[in-house]
Amino acid sequence: MNDQRRQSGLDLDLGDQCSAIAYGWAKRTFPTRLGRMGLPVLQVDGSFCNLMDFGELRVAMCSDGVGTKVEVAERTRRYDTLGHDLVAMVVDDLAANGVEPVNVSNILDVDVLDADIVDQLMRGLHEAARVAGVAVVGGEIAELGSRVRGWGDGMHFNWCATAIGVLPRGINPIDGTRVAPGDLVVALRSRGFRSNGFSLARRVLEADLGPDWHDRAWDGEVTWGQVMLTPSRIYSPGVQALIASGCALHGIAHVTGGGIPGNLERVLEPNGLGARLDRLFPPHDFMTDLIRRGGVEPRDAYRMFNMGTGMLLVVAADDAERCVALLRERRYEAQVAGVVTPGSGITVIEPLGGREPCVFDGGR
Amino acid sequence: MNDQRRQSGLDLDLGDQCSAIAYGWAKRTFPTRLGRMGLPVLQVDGSFCNLMDFGELRVAMCSDGVGTKVEVAERTRRYDTLGHDLVAMVVDDLAANGVEPVNVSNILDVDVLDADIVDQLMRGLHEAARVAGVAVVGGEIAELGSRVRGWGDGMHFNWCATAIGVLPRGINPIDGTRVAPGDLVVALRSRGFRSNGFSLARRVLEADLGPDWHDRAWDGEVTWGQVMLTPSRIYSPGVQALIASGCALHGIAHVTGGGIPGNLERVLEPNGLGARLDRLFPPHDFMTDLIRRGGVEPRDAYRMFNMGTGMLLVVAADDAERCVALLRERRYEAQVAGVVTPGSGITVIEPLGGREPCVFDGGR
Repeated sequence: MNDQRRQSGLDLDLGDQCSAIAYGWAKRTFPTRLGRMGLPVLQVDGSFCNLMDFGELRVAMCSDGVGTKVEVAERTRRYDTLGHDLVAMVVDDLAANGVEPVNVSNILDVDVLDADIVDQLMRGLHEAARVAGVAVVGGEIAELGSRVRGWGDGMHFNWCATAIGVLPRGINPIDGTRVAPGDLVVALRSRGFRSNGFSLARRVLEADLGPDWHDRAWDGEVTWGQVMLTPSRIYSPGVQALIASGCALHGIAHVTGGGIPGNLERVLEPNGLGARLDRLFPPHDFMTDLIRRGGVEPRDAYRMFNMGTGMLLVVAADDAERCVALLRERRYEAQVAGVVTPGSGITVIEPLGGREPCVFDGGR
Repeated sequence: MNDQRRQSGLDLDLGDQCSAIAYGWAKRTFPTRLGRMGLPVLQVDGSFCNLMDFGELRVAMCSDGVGTKVEVAERTRRYDTLGHDLVAMVVDDLAANGVEPVNVSNILDVDVLDADIVDQLMRGLHEAARVAGVAVVGGEIAELGSRVRGWGDGMHFNWCATAIGVLPRGINPIDGTRVAPGDLVVALRSRGFRSNGFSLARRVLEADLGPDWHDRAWDGEVTWGQVMLTPSRIYSPGVQALIASGCALHGIAHVTGGGIPGNLERVLEPNGLGARLDRLFPPHDFMTDLIRRGGVEPRDAYRMFNMGTGMLLVVAADDAERCVALLRERRYEAQVAGVVTPGSGITVIEPLGGREPCVFDGGR
């Protein structure tokens, strides 16, 4: 496990430590808003977004970026899809708390500017924002010269955004506190890699296919570069539709870094519960292929990649089929994938079959 | 002028073009919020923050970063002051619209993590947030490996943030539309370089003092590295105090990239007015020294650096002295620096004396 983590080029333990440091200092700023608008309401450590009291409303705010998926865009010279990844990262973190995403602001760090690439990026962002139903209300393009580097010639960049969303007074956030044994887990299919796991994925592809892995064919039709660039599906509109329909949504896990176990644990932890997932979607063929090329063990792959499932919804058992039907009406691929169990620990029965189940016993 | 701009390593015209592209695409996402919360209210091109309708409230959102000032922290190995620059950049852009800053979310892009540096950065951010009266409610630390580069060994990073603020219904944003000839311009002194102009400043210092310019003495007491790292003063609490006191604030220019002319023009443009500034604070001695070493012409220096003034307030003439007194009570250095004139164009009478006045005739 740890070897696998190190192999990805990221030190996840140091990452957790640094996040804890940042959160510790941030928490000490919460009292600045006592008795005023903007007082943080959630004081739960480790949530990806906080919720602030604005009188009749609560406002949530969340920041993220597309990480090193940018390199795939640089390699394929296609820049109009990353906006979907960027919007997905931030609005789906809000949606995972039951919050309606409303506005997005983005920051594009570049070494040198290329107006055509900026145009493609921003067009993609605009398309994704329309899908998500959010307005892009601000942004910053920062020319940082040699502080930003990337693959090949031309403009290199790093891209991140912050989204805000609202939750009217009287409506509860979805934070896992209502999850109970017997609740069903509904899986939403991903399109491919979202915006995490790229450091490991690129390393595997480079080791197996060489420095120009992006131009190598995955099958007769598409290259590895095209496959890896597959834009993220944005789930927030589906989640908003479920909330509007009164669906008994008890918890939502947005499957990003940490994978299914890392993100579902966050939802099950408040009540000390577990889950048995035996009908997950299978990983995409190119994902399985990449995992095989890298010799990545399934239990590690489930932590590093989304494995075909981009979001998990925990729903009261008697409401699950209605949720699935509603999602399918909106053209999301959705299916009941498992059940919440008493006691902690997540068991994944591999959809590929033929191997031992993966058991994740807490301790992210 | 353009030579000077190019000398800074930034192409300001291409920068403007790319900002216009980004804004053009963003604007096409505004209708996604028609009839719902989060509809952008300001449709004025070129504002640094928008204002969104949230029913009883309007919420503003603004993003920025500390740019290449980071290199000075890397050179001096002092990391606990940049938080002041980061908070200043985002909350003072909100304050410049008459909006009360409320919450901040930050994104730290790193190559490799160093928990001690993260701790210093976040401690500084926390201190600055307490000064500004805002809660740090979220953040993201992204490990981007070789996509982030910097000076010397160890962790390198780029750092940006998004702030949100509120404006209750019935209170007007401060957008320059009430500015009239005869209004006075009140200057707020800066502490030094804020977070803009560092590409040019570093180039000048490296050319004049060599690659280790940060260790060279500026005077007997401090090094150039220390002087250049001087943290930004945060003006927002002063602006909030003026608004609370009912001060007749008609326009506010936060002096960042573009300097006094670029940012004051934005405030004077709505009514086609100009200004004559004959009592500005003098630039800091180290700023003057740097400008002399670089052979930068004063009219260029006023576009690239803050020249001693970090914010300009446009105030009704009969309220200006009261504003200045209120600001001084809160230990801001403030003075009346000039007057709004009919017709466009900004004339700066150089506080150092002995030269021709700098006339900026619109056309940023």
